[in-house]
Amino acid sequence: MNVQPVLFQAPEPANLDQERRARLTLNLIAEPGDWAFLAVAHEIGGIAMLRAIHDDPRKHELLEAAAARLAEVDVDRTMEEADRLGLRFVIPGDDEWPGQVEDLYGHEPISERGGPPIGLWVKGPLRLDTLGESVAIVGSRSSTSYGESVAADIAAQLGHADVPIVSGAAYGIDYAAHRGALSTRAPTVAVLACGADRVYPTAHRQLLDHLGREHAVVSEAPPGHSPQRIRFLARNRLIAALSKGTVVVEAAYRSGAISTVNWAARLNRVVMGVPGPISVATSAGVHQLIRNHVATLVTSGDDVLELIGKAGEHVRDEPRGPDNPRDLLTFRERQVLDAVPVAQSAGVDSIAVVAGLGVAPVRRALEGLLQKGFVERDHSGWHLTDLAMT
Amino acid sequence: MNVQPVLFQAPEPANLDQERRARLTLNLIAEPGDWAFLAVAHEIGGIAMLRAIHDDPRKHELLEAAAARLAEVDVDRTMEEADRLGLRFVIPGDDEWPGQVEDLYGHEPISERGGPPIGLWVKGPLRLDTLGESVAIVGSRSSTSYGESVAADIAAQLGHADVPIVSGAAYGIDYAAHRGALSTRAPTVAVLACGADRVYPTAHRQLLDHLGREHAVVSEAPPGHSPQRIRFLARNRLIAALSKGTVVVEAAYRSGAISTVNWAARLNRVVMGVPGPISVATSAGVHQLIRNHVATLVTSGDDVLELIGKAGEHVRDEPRGPDNPRDLLTFRERQVLDAVPVAQSAGVDSIAVVAGLGVAPVRRALEGLLQKGFVERDHSGWHLTDLAMT
Repeated sequence: MNVQPVLFQAPEPANLDQERRARLTLNLIAEPGDWAFLAVAHEIGGIAMLRAIHDDPRKHELLEAAAARLAEVDVDRTMEEADRLGLRFVIPGDDEWPGQVEDLYGHEPISERGGPPIGLWVKGPLRLDTLGESVAIVGSRSSTSYGESVAADIAAQLGHADVPIVSGAAYGIDYAAHRGALSTRAPTVAVLACGADRVYPTAHRQLLDHLGREHAVVSEAPPGHSPQRIRFLARNRLIAALSKGTVVVEAAYRSGAISTVNWAARLNRVVMGVPGPISVATSAGVHQLIRNHVATLVTSGDDVLELIGKAGEHVRDEPRGPDNPRDLLTFRERQVLDAVPVAQSAGVDSIAVVAGLGVAPVRRALEGLLQKGFVERDHSGWHLTDLAMT
Repeated sequence: MNVQPVLFQAPEPANLDQERRARLTLNLIAEPGDWAFLAVAHEIGGIAMLRAIHDDPRKHELLEAAAARLAEVDVDRTMEEADRLGLRFVIPGDDEWPGQVEDLYGHEPISERGGPPIGLWVKGPLRLDTLGESVAIVGSRSSTSYGESVAADIAAQLGHADVPIVSGAAYGIDYAAHRGALSTRAPTVAVLACGADRVYPTAHRQLLDHLGREHAVVSEAPPGHSPQRIRFLARNRLIAALSKGTVVVEAAYRSGAISTVNWAARLNRVVMGVPGPISVATSAGVHQLIRNHVATLVTSGDDVLELIGKAGEHVRDEPRGPDNPRDLLTFRERQVLDAVPVAQSAGVDSIAVVAGLGVAPVRRALEGLLQKGFVERDHSGWHLTDLAMT
């Protein structure tokens, strides 16, 4: 198919409804992440693509296959159904369109899925254009309690800094991430592989109902569509594309979370990984990403804020550990302290020799160290206290 | 002090004994890691430096201070004592001299310690020139059982690949590293802050006795010298300099292990860190080193072998996790499997639509998937098995 250099521009407001109807139609006949189909829609727009399917389907087998499926869809019924379910279909040109997902255009597919979405189905009051500074937190469904507590903590720390959290509402890390965000006032968004009206996994009905009421549930799949493995792969790229950075907490070598991370890396998003015990298999994929410099190691929300470039707003000191009591000492006192034996007592003369100093200044320094609790005197001279050994 | 461009060259065998005696004398009057003193000795050699101290100590205060201490030392007695204790003093020009420690020349001191050693005291049969491909494993004295088991495992994995292990015989990670190495036939070396004849900590008498009998105990400090804080700082630089790479397992933000790592980084040694749970304070320093790309994350002896460039001898596959059962499937079967719904059953027609394939090939693929255990048939069509969900 020859793509003309006349590329699609977001429609004028007057044509927005016509473009939306065209894209919704295309959404019903294309699978999420059908990258060849989506690339054409992105290049020429919904109206032009639908016209091509109608007018000249023989031009390309992609159009021909689409034309065959066009007869099966009922656009009006889907629109009524979406209204009833409280879903909206957001497209380029809408104020709330999250333009960052168009970064998906021009990238090779992973597992045959890729491309920018034609539009996004949304349930809930949250506007998608507020997700430009969001962070995705993803990871294993078979997570450990360590991983879940880490994911929830980081989500809460980011939430307190008003960073929206994007995840997939799955078991394990996803659930913990949403839960951590919900412990703050920050928005949190679930991107699903099934229709945004559906509940998967069903055990997370309460979470998804709450998100659909107070935040947002998002999907590329039309209402009613069931979760399928291929749709999870398509969904993962959207999580990566919507957010400014992706944090992976516990992920085996091959997993959905790693596919999200691979998309995030391709899209030049910030890729971050939380380490864990090396004895736990779920951290192995994360460690590999860090080792290969695909992901940067993070251990806190502050680390994440710094990496996504919110460090100006959230000034962050390099962690230095608890203040070292030795900082209280003068230079001379430190010199002398370093010359006091570790395992036994020593006289002033012997300490002076090791320190390379005269006896008088060493005696003065030892008095200072005594006052500050670093040394003690005994019958055979001076020895270190526990404080000095820390 | 004007250093002439006539630099010290390792002595001819005929002069080796004279140079050894000179260096041993200098060793008795200088503190380990006294970098200004050591730099001069490195530049002009032991014989020339000792002559300068004798002949013209007023030339420089460094020589003057040395001359004052010269009167206090008894070289012959130290040599007899060393003989009796089974210690030897190894210097440049000896076959077993580990030339890599001379990389310390020309680097700024850390905490006023630095410089290449004048010589090294050694107890035990191991030759120091076998440590060129050794790995140092260091870390916290206040280690967790996780850290200790990791250190011992990595040391044993390296030991099985005949890599010598260098450490400091301290409590915690050091002890675990020696212990792991001793579980193999590989050599392991303790570098001490006190004289190589002394036992510190005293609880490690058995370990140090064994190393001194079968492997080697090394120190820059003369026999009989006690462990002092400043000597630990000096010792850490030797651990880094002797080995080809340093692995740090559990270390707080400021600690002796971090000072070893800083020396390793300066000396262009390979710096490696083992991650741990972020909730444990002892891993915080290691995580910071990895995050700042000072250390590369490692989780196994194989990782270490690859990084120190023994990958040619120890060929290493990128870890891929356990074999994925999906690898057994044909391309077509995978396509169809991806189109089977996750949460419910579906008929062949519906699966064919999602897969974008005809009904006949889908039916054939489903039969294959059934045989391989990925799908099952029920009254309403086909659904995924647990195997397919992994």
